[in-house]
Amino acid sequence: MYAVEVRHHIMIAHSFRGAVFGPAQALHGATFVVDAAILSEALDENGIVVDIGRLDEALKAVLAPLNYRNLDEVPEFAGRNTTTEFLTRHVFDRLAETARAGALGREGRALHAIRVTISESHVARAWYEAPLW
Amino acid sequence: MYAVEVRHHIMIAHSFRGAVFGPAQALHGATFVVDAAILSEALDENGIVVDIGRLDEALKAVLAPLNYRNLDEVPEFAGRNTTTEFLTRHVFDRLAETARAGALGREGRALHAIRVTISESHVARAWYEAPLW
Amino acid sequence: MYAVEVRHHIMIAHSFRGAVFGPAQALHGATFVVDAAILSEALDENGIVVDIGRLDEALKAVLAPLNYRNLDEVPEFAGRNTTTEFLTRHVFDRLAETARAGALGREGRALHAIRVTISESHVARAWYEAPLW
Amino acid sequence: MYAVEVRHHIMIAHSFRGAVFGPAQALHGATFVVDAAILSEALDENGIVVDIGRLDEALKAVLAPLNYRNLDEVPEFAGRNTTTEFLTRHVFDRLAETARAGALGREGRALHAIRVTISESHVARAWYEAPLW
Amino acid sequence: MYAVEVRHHIMIAHSFRGAVFGPAQALHGATFVVDAAILSEALDENGIVVDIGRLDEALKAVLAPLNYRNLDEVPEFAGRNTTTEFLTRHVFDRLAETARAGALGREGRALHAIRVTISESHVARAWYEAPLW
Amino acid sequence: MYAVEVRHHIMIAHSFRGAVFGPAQALHGATFVVDAAILSEALDENGIVVDIGRLDEALKAVLAPLNYRNLDEVPEFAGRNTTTEFLTRHVFDRLAETARAGALGREGRALHAIRVTISESHVARAWYEAPLW
Repeated sequence: MYAVEVRHHIMIAHSFRGAVFGPAQALHGATFVVDAAILSEALDENGIVVDIGRLDEALKAVLAPLNYRNLDEVPEFAGRNTTTEFLTRHVFDRLAETARAGALGREGRALHAIRVTISESHVARAWYEAPLW
Repeated sequence: MYAVEVRHHIMIAHSFRGAVFGPAQALHGATFVVDAAILSEALDENGIVVDIGRLDEALKAVLAPLNYRNLDEVPEFAGRNTTTEFLTRHVFDRLAETARAGALGREGRALHAIRVTISESHVARAWYEAPLW
Repeated sequence: MYAVEVRHHIMIAHSFRGAVFGPAQALHGATFVVDAAILSEALDENGIVVDIGRLDEALKAVLAPLNYRNLDEVPEFAGRNTTTEFLTRHVFDRLAETARAGALGREGRALHAIRVTISESHVARAWYEAPLW
Repeated sequence: MYAVEVRHHIMIAHSFRGAVFGPAQALHGATFVVDAAILSEALDENGIVVDIGRLDEALKAVLAPLNYRNLDEVPEFAGRNTTTEFLTRHVFDRLAETARAGALGREGRALHAIRVTISESHVARAWYEAPLW
Repeated sequence: MYAVEVRHHIMIAHSFRGAVFGPAQALHGATFVVDAAILSEALDENGIVVDIGRLDEALKAVLAPLNYRNLDEVPEFAGRNTTTEFLTRHVFDRLAETARAGALGREGRALHAIRVTISESHVARAWYEAPLW
Repeated sequence: MYAVEVRHHIMIAHSFRGAVFGPAQALHGATFVVDAAILSEALDENGIVVDIGRLDEALKAVLAPLNYRNLDEVPEFAGRNTTTEFLTRHVFDRLAETARAGALGREGRALHAIRVTISESHVARAWYEAPLW
C-alpha cells in the first residue's frame, strides 16, 4: 500500500462539556497540526498516489472554515465536543468526499483509504483512518 | 479506526547479551521516548477514544518503575535483553491490562488495540501493536 | 556560556485588536510549546546550571495560571494583545523573578540570562532573551 | 506485530514529466529522509526484530547508488518519474530482497513486512508498506 | 531582545566546484527548510516584532525565484558555490533590504537583526545572523 | 556571523552524586543527541564555514570514546558529574582543539566560536558556546 501525506495547521478556540475534561471545560484553544494521507494500492501513470498540489489545496479548503474560529460557534458542530479525535473524523469525511468525487485528480475508485492525524502538542495527537469504499 | 496517543520518556541503563549487539554488550544507557496509542472503532459519548488525562497517568505509572534504573537489575527482566522492541511489548502488556480492566475510563471492550512506539534516538525506533481482544 | 532548557505547553484562547492581525482578530486559540533556558557563565559544584527539576517546576508554575484559559479574560493582560512575542516576555519576567530570588536552587547572581522560546505551530515561533542583571 | 526502524537520507536532483507536476517538471532536487521499518510477529532469541546494525548497513547500501546523483541519469530509472512514492517502492524492493535472503541476520520467513517512509520536507512525505511473502 | 521566526522550504538542484566537496561535486539537490527570524529590542504598539503575515510573504517572495530550479543556472549565482551557508546569506541580504525599507510593516530602524537558518537534512544545518544597521 | 552544524548521538550509562539529583543519583542512562556548530565571520573561497564532512568526522571522533560506555568508569571523568551541561563543555573542548589546530580543513584563526547542544530528551537540552580565541 502506498500513501502520500501533506501538513497544514489551524488555530482555534473551543470548550468541552463533560466532567471528564476537567479544566478543559473552560474556553481554551489549540494549534492543530493536521497531516492528511491518501492511501492507494497502485501509483498512477505519473508515478504518484495523487497530485500533492491538489491534496494540499483540498486540505487547506477543508481547514479554512475552521481556522481562527471559536469552534463552539460553528453551527455544524453544535452540541458536539470538538475534540482532537472528533476533528480527525471531520477532516476525514470532507477529504473523503473530495477523493471519492475524483477531485484529487485521480479516479476515486483508485484510492483506498485516508488517514488524518492531528497533533495538539508535542506530546499528544490523534488519528482516524478508514477505507474510502 | 480512531486513535489517541500520548508521550513520556525514561532514562535507563542496561547491557545486552549476544554477539549481535557488538559494543552494546557493555553497560550503556538510553533515553526512551515512549508514545502510547489507544485504538477504538468508535468515540464515546464525550467524543473521545479515552480520557487523555487517564491515559497519560497510566503511561506514567507503567514507566515509573523503570525510570532512572539499571534495567539489568530489575528482577522481572532477569535473563532478558531489554531491547527497544522488548520494552515496547512490556509497556503494551501493562497498558493492555489497564485498558481491559476499564481503568482508562471506558469499558475495555470498547477499545480495540494498543500501539506502543519507543524512539531510542533521532534515527532509530521500534513499535509493537496488537489487538486487545 | 552554558544553558539548560526545559519544555512545557499551554492551550489557550485569545483574540487580537488591530487591523494588522486580519482574521486573528476573531476569538481563536493556540497550543504554545514553551522552552525556557537559563544561561550561566559557570556550572555549580554539582556540574549543573540549575536543578533541572526546579526549573521544570518553576516553568510549570508560571504557565499554570494561563493554561486552559481565555487570555482575553486574564485581568493582568487587560488591554494587551497576548501575542506569542508578548507571552515570551511574560514568561521571562516571571522566571526572572524566580531566578533572581535564588529559587532555582542557585544564588541568583550566578545566573546570567534567560531565553524563552514559544512555538505556536510547526512553522512559527518567537523568543525573548535578556540578561538577568 | 513488532517493528524496528532506522533513518538515513540522500540528496538528489531530478525532474518530472507530466503537466500535473507544474514547476516540478524543471530540473530541481530534494533531500529525502528515509525511514525503513522491518515488521515481524515475534522477536528472535536475542529479543530483537533484526540486528539494527545490519538494517542500518542495508539501508545505506540501498541508498548509496542514489546519493549525490541526478536521478534522471540513473539507467534503471529511465522513463520513470522518480517521485517520492516511486522511491519508497524502490527502497522497499531492494530491502525486501535483502530481508528475504536472510541478509538482515534472521531467517527471512521470520520477517513479515517492510514499511519505507520518505519525507521530502517538513510538510510532505510518502510511504510504501507490503508483506514480504 | 525579541524575535519572531517563520518557516518555508525550497527544492533545488545544484553542484559544487572544489575537491573539498567530494561526491557533492556531481549534480545533486536538496530540500532546504528555511527559518527566517527578525530581531528587535522592543515590540510595537500591537505587541509584535513585525506582522508575521508580511514576514511570511516576504520570505516566500525571496525563495520563489529559487524554488524548483537548478541553481547552477541562476545567473546571479554564476561562479559561486550555492552552499547552505551561502544561501543563508543570500536570503539574509534580500530580507534585510525588505526590512530596512520598512516593507515588513514596521519602520526599519525599529528592527535590529535577522537570522536565517537553513536545514539541509535532519542532521545538518547552517545559519547566518547579522545586525541590520 | 555564519554557522554550520552537524548531529550525532551517543547512548551512555552514568550516575550522579548530590542530593539535588534525586532519583538520578542511581545508575541510569541517556541518549544524548549532540549538535556541534562552528561559527565564523566569513566563508572560505569554497563558500563554506568548514568542510561539513570533516566536522562530521571530528564530532564522531570526539564522541566515539564515550559511546556505549558507563561514564562513571571513564578515568578522565573521575570525581565529576557527567551532566548534560558538563558534556557540552567536554565536547566543546575537544572540538576546539581540533578547530584551533586547523584540522577542520581551515586555518584555525578563521573560526570564531563553537556551540555544542545536547538534547537528553524531547523536553530537555543544554548547550555551551564560547569563542575559540
